[in-house]
Amino acid sequence: MGGKGTVFLAGTGPGDPKLITIRTLEIIQQADVILYDRLVNRELLRHARADARLIDCGKRSGRHTRSQDEINRILVEEAEAGRMVLRLKGGDPGIFGRVGEEAACCAERGIPFEIVPGITSGTAAPIYAGIPPTYRGVSSSVAFVTGHQHTGADRAPDWAGLAGSVDTLVIYMGVGNLPHIQRTLLANGRPADTPVALIRWGTLDGKQETLTGTLGGYRRQGP
Amino acid sequence: MGGKGTVFLAGTGPGDPKLITIRTLEIIQQADVILYDRLVNRELLRHARADARLIDCGKRSGRHTRSQDEINRILVEEAEAGRMVLRLKGGDPGIFGRVGEEAACCAERGIPFEIVPGITSGTAAPIYAGIPPTYRGVSSSVAFVTGHQHTGADRAPDWAGLAGSVDTLVIYMGVGNLPHIQRTLLANGRPADTPVALIRWGTLDGKQETLTGTLGGYRRQGP
Repeated sequence: MGGKGTVFLAGTGPGDPKLITIRTLEIIQQADVILYDRLVNRELLRHARADARLIDCGKRSGRHTRSQDEINRILVEEAEAGRMVLRLKGGDPGIFGRVGEEAACCAERGIPFEIVPGITSGTAAPIYAGIPPTYRGVSSSVAFVTGHQHTGADRAPDWAGLAGSVDTLVIYMGVGNLPHIQRTLLANGRPADTPVALIRWGTLDGKQETLTGTLGGYRRQGP
Repeated sequence: MGGKGTVFLAGTGPGDPKLITIRTLEIIQQADVILYDRLVNRELLRHARADARLIDCGKRSGRHTRSQDEINRILVEEAEAGRMVLRLKGGDPGIFGRVGEEAACCAERGIPFEIVPGITSGTAAPIYAGIPPTYRGVSSSVAFVTGHQHTGADRAPDWAGLAGSVDTLVIYMGVGNLPHIQRTLLANGRPADTPVALIRWGTLDGKQETLTGTLGGYRRQGP
């Protein structure tokens, strides 16, 4: 008795609750403790055990509900108490999900962990908008890039290099930085008539919104 | 009676049968006709109805079991006969899955269709190898690129441009073209000590193999 519990670092997929995997759903149903992010669809938490401890780690209105240090501390404490701990994230934990930092924290403390992939919004939201990220004869490469640097410790994407080298660019969290990204891509040779789509609430039933246009300028789509 | 059936163009995820989504699993359970690819885990077909028609569209030993034209013809015929048709693909249909061509074929014939995302191997196989495709402070961009051009109609990736502009490069179907890709990346400034992993049978229990090394040379990993 007193063995360490396992930490599961799992993705729920992009929002549509039916895009969760069998594996992540099973773990939700079994976990003792679930630490969930802002981007996790709350509907999925209904599958948790009635006696599971649910901890909201979301950030709202610029206020960090839980710092990364605090999240790491809870992961470690609960696992060291022998509990099955689920760190539940929207999308895929390996694509801008900071899973490496949490996995490293577990590894340092000798806590067994498992990373469970999910569908990332960068592949699914375009599909729900009718846009395959690759298309034979048109796009043989697609890059997923973060549009937002949180701190000076973050690495800035090479927008100038990306402008000409990748067929399809999928930018996550890009709205705040949009004018800079648009200008840099145009200044580095991406044509002004490059088709562009802006998507929010990706894959959420009745909520996804898509604006389409060109890199030179965009307009609101349809009704 | 006489109405057109719907065509579902769905991904199963990368191989581990537990990485299928609830949505794709539901469609497998309901479909009248299932056309499946070589990369679909056969275990998943056990969920099909006992009376479903299962059609193998895989390519084996360089021989096309079914041509794309023949697949399109079957999709259209079965849907026009009012059946629920599932075109089942490994990974994600929007990432090198040619879903655009099959969706366009349905659209031209007025056949209702739905594209259902899956987890692409490019995000999941690295995770199963312990390598998050993005990592704060190390990688803020990841590109998925096809290493294999099937015909002259395919667009070749800009290896020279990709060499310097993207933090993590994930190359699908790259083995045949590996010496060319390696040389071109090195010749265009990607450092010889860039860490490299070669993965096959990604996410398949007990089968995934990973070789690690550097862009300048790689060696077989562990036992």
